[in-house]
Amino acid sequence: MHTNFYTEHEQKLQQALEAIQNRGFFSAYPEVPSGKIYGETAKKDGQVAFKGYIGSDFTLKQGGCEGTLGGEISPYGLPINTQYPKANCIELLQEITKACPAWRNASIETRVGCAMEILDRLNKRSFEMAFAVMHTTGQGFMMAFQAGGPHAQDRGLEAIAYAYKAMKDCPANTTWCKQVGRDDFVTLEKEFKIIPRGIGLVIGCSTFPTWNTYPGLFASLVTGNAVIVKPHPGAILPLAITVDICQTVLAEAGFDTNLVTLAADTTEQPITAELVENDAINIIDYTGGSVFGNWVEANAGNAMVYTEKAGVNSVIIDSVAQMKAVSGNLAFSLCLYSGQMCTTPQNIFIPRGGIETEDGLLSFDDVANAIVKGVDWMLSDQGRANEVLGAIQNQATADRIDCADGDVIREGVSIEHAMFGEARTRSLKIVKLDASQRDVFAQEMFGPLVYVIATDSTDQSIELASSIATEHGAISCGLYSTNDEIIEKAIDAMSLAGVPVSCNLIGNIWVNQSAAFSDFHVSGANPSGNATLSDAAFVVGRFNVVQCRTFVPQPEPPSESKPKSKKAEV
Amino acid sequence: MHTNFYTEHEQKLQQALEAIQNRGFFSAYPEVPSGKIYGETAKKDGQVAFKGYIGSDFTLKQGGCEGTLGGEISPYGLPINTQYPKANCIELLQEITKACPAWRNASIETRVGCAMEILDRLNKRSFEMAFAVMHTTGQGFMMAFQAGGPHAQDRGLEAIAYAYKAMKDCPANTTWCKQVGRDDFVTLEKEFKIIPRGIGLVIGCSTFPTWNTYPGLFASLVTGNAVIVKPHPGAILPLAITVDICQTVLAEAGFDTNLVTLAADTTEQPITAELVENDAINIIDYTGGSVFGNWVEANAGNAMVYTEKAGVNSVIIDSVAQMKAVSGNLAFSLCLYSGQMCTTPQNIFIPRGGIETEDGLLSFDDVANAIVKGVDWMLSDQGRANEVLGAIQNQATADRIDCADGDVIREGVSIEHAMFGEARTRSLKIVKLDASQRDVFAQEMFGPLVYVIATDSTDQSIELASSIATEHGAISCGLYSTNDEIIEKAIDAMSLAGVPVSCNLIGNIWVNQSAAFSDFHVSGANPSGNATLSDAAFVVGRFNVVQCRTFVPQPEPPSESKPKSKKAEV
Repeated sequence: MHTNFYTEHEQKLQQALEAIQNRGFFSAYPEVPSGKIYGETAKKDGQVAFKGYIGSDFTLKQGGCEGTLGGEISPYGLPINTQYPKANCIELLQEITKACPAWRNASIETRVGCAMEILDRLNKRSFEMAFAVMHTTGQGFMMAFQAGGPHAQDRGLEAIAYAYKAMKDCPANTTWCKQVGRDDFVTLEKEFKIIPRGIGLVIGCSTFPTWNTYPGLFASLVTGNAVIVKPHPGAILPLAITVDICQTVLAEAGFDTNLVTLAADTTEQPITAELVENDAINIIDYTGGSVFGNWVEANAGNAMVYTEKAGVNSVIIDSVAQMKAVSGNLAFSLCLYSGQMCTTPQNIFIPRGGIETEDGLLSFDDVANAIVKGVDWMLSDQGRANEVLGAIQNQATADRIDCADGDVIREGVSIEHAMFGEARTRSLKIVKLDASQRDVFAQEMFGPLVYVIATDSTDQSIELASSIATEHGAISCGLYSTNDEIIEKAIDAMSLAGVPVSCNLIGNIWVNQSAAFSDFHVSGANPSGNATLSDAAFVVGRFNVVQCRTFVPQPEPPSESKPKSKKAEV
Repeated sequence: MHTNFYTEHEQKLQQALEAIQNRGFFSAYPEVPSGKIYGETAKKDGQVAFKGYIGSDFTLKQGGCEGTLGGEISPYGLPINTQYPKANCIELLQEITKACPAWRNASIETRVGCAMEILDRLNKRSFEMAFAVMHTTGQGFMMAFQAGGPHAQDRGLEAIAYAYKAMKDCPANTTWCKQVGRDDFVTLEKEFKIIPRGIGLVIGCSTFPTWNTYPGLFASLVTGNAVIVKPHPGAILPLAITVDICQTVLAEAGFDTNLVTLAADTTEQPITAELVENDAINIIDYTGGSVFGNWVEANAGNAMVYTEKAGVNSVIIDSVAQMKAVSGNLAFSLCLYSGQMCTTPQNIFIPRGGIETEDGLLSFDDVANAIVKGVDWMLSDQGRANEVLGAIQNQATADRIDCADGDVIREGVSIEHAMFGEARTRSLKIVKLDASQRDVFAQEMFGPLVYVIATDSTDQSIELASSIATEHGAISCGLYSTNDEIIEKAIDAMSLAGVPVSCNLIGNIWVNQSAAFSDFHVSGANPSGNATLSDAAFVVGRFNVVQCRTFVPQPEPPSESKPKSKKAEV
């Protein structure tokens, strides 16, 4: 059974391996939520499946659990209240430990085949996942489908490809033959074994529960580790569905379902710290806020830790061809999912003396107003506004935005949702600041709040954006300039600060997008995280290679051909 | 100038890249200390150069230093007392910081070319290095030449090859083109830049100052970092010579010599902890004892840390073809450099009921006595004994061995050295123990002390060897068995404990040998260290890849060919 999984998906693996080699465009799972691709009833089926979870018990095939927990509430106002198995961490770890040997000893191909089958089944259930992601994160439907489904699956496959490549980088065996004299050789047969580190813990976040979790989940799994999935208490369902599919595939392939388990908790009784500090956990993948992420990095003991935390993202506007194209592009970037992406810009730096355009100089206020106008237009249609903004995942985010004051040039009030009257919404608040107010804009203000900041010059804009990134982290940077020297200078400074730059984006491509197989997400080179999705560094720490060498007796040469000369040889 | 270095050494790099791919036998630098290879006067020239250092000031081209320090004494009794620049760490770091940008911005080829030129010049001075290593570590001359010279250079080249491969794994740029509609494409030009982490610190040990230091030194250097070399206070000279050559080559290539600096200290005024805790240090390579190594791992802040610490190595004897071949092989392994290799066996587990051989059953005592006899023969000739044993690097090692008591079946007394009357020597002490004395043999006893331990069975031998490795670490394991099932069982257990097994070694190959390009040294999978010399994991944490993507406007299609159809496309 399980070797078939590999054969079935091998072509896709090869495509993924090619893609990570050239990092051009590639996607393995279609991003368009079309009935033609996913089946004409797929959307309805997904909705029915999602509704079936509401208020129900979500059963999983895992031990070490007693009782249930759960209390998710959709940011769109729908009570979910699915109940999940409540894990006793100590007992769960005992069950997992028993499951490990068979998986550890399975071939690389068997493990990769299972993982790709899991992705395949996740893909088929992308509509169901879309509703689960939408109603836990507050994303609009289209985004929930794409980021929660195929884009997350692509990120998972990308990690599998890197892990496969890393494991295959060392030959499984070799013959070592050294000449130690004119006719003397020493021969050793050497075998190189992949030894997984043991048990991985993947800590999910509330805004992108699948997209940010799949790389660590699949990288740990295919390298032979068991994985505990610890979802955010507010976004359990998408990962419960994921774990369920993992367990089903593992069982079909003849493995213990405790190899992938869910360890859900509640805000009132969190269990993450207990797991992080447990010596039985050997690998930790974390996505979430910086404060807890820094704690995880410091308290993980000997576990390998891969983090994606938060940062303060900037846009540097130096000069543009046409402001309208830029402000239109920025408006979508700023509004998308109410600024709740780790890649959403927060600070827009504009020289107070204005900027050059093809149509002449635009003052600072002209630029600021163009951005406000772009946002106003984006949100002028209720349906578009609802779909683009989605809802606010966490009340704390709404409160934070409501409290932000100063020179507000666009209010970020609650807006009505056409379908969900109880949705927690905010439109985008824009505040004007001066470069001297560094203490205000150097702080991360997660959510739909943007600062437009007047600087002395683009040089100062670059200095502020890069120094804030070095100090507090940053995951994206938008740059608009028609001057090659400025572009080079900005890229140099931001690269050194570990921030990828997106240069002069207009049209259908946005600074907050990160495409699997091409864009490295988080550089690992500033405080916003220590890892990248995905590269070799993201996978090689999940296993070790341990060798064995065996002496091979030298055959006696036939006596007539055995020379007697003792002349020394090198 | 510096691009020529790359061209000059490119062929050797390609050979090294092939070697790490198949991990068969390869060596780039000849291990035979022959005048035919190194020049007829090479040995004499090396000796003259070494003598020139005695009692002299060793000048280096580096800033941030004031005054001198040094107090090395040869384990062979010769006072060395070379005086090295005394670094003020804060000022040194300031000088280094100024040196970084040009090196960071140099091409991969430029950096690799410089590093390989350094190795080439180190190779030419292998005799000088041999005397420096011999008189700081206590190694015999042949070992000091090979391990301190060509074998260390091979390990350096191996690390360079892995680093080069890792940096080249990501393309420097790519075109990303995504179809977003029937005739609509979004195109981005993407550039991927290698961003080094900053400043690396390489902490050397007293027994293999070059072999254990070169991998970290060259891996950090070629990935664009500056490197501070912090030698053990007892073995500074070999690394001072190395740093001097680094600085000379860097200067010739037009770079600041502060890119590779020496930070020497004394036992009385150590500076390592201060450097480890300094936030300006971004990468740490450590070789040495476990206690300080564990402290380094825990106190390095955000620096990447690669350690090789210590372990408790075992030999498991289950059954053999001919005991004499085995005891002869073991005798050399045990005596070589007076057991001061991190790969030297400490515990030899033998079933108390004896072992099967081609010549019938041998009792436990027969086996123990055969090993004693093998060692006695090995050390029966004074010249051979002196060359094989060398001298004891540290008085603490001699004291530790002298204090070891119990059922001593071979005394480890001081033996006379034919050339150096003042040499600190010990021959090999062998103590008989029972499996019940775990608290004795589970401790690391660095130096010329071996325990032969009576176990209930080979199963117990395997259990003890593997559990001690898991708990305290282990770097090597010798296994002797003629039973395939036992071999498989032992390899499985030891692999899981992260210990490479050497199976049935006889003749001219020994368990403590570790060949560059083929043997992974330290697995990273037990407490003896978190890194391997060398693999991808050893290099990928030394740099990040930061990308930049630039929007490419889509050319307007010629109007006649622009279709009007609006049919939706995936």
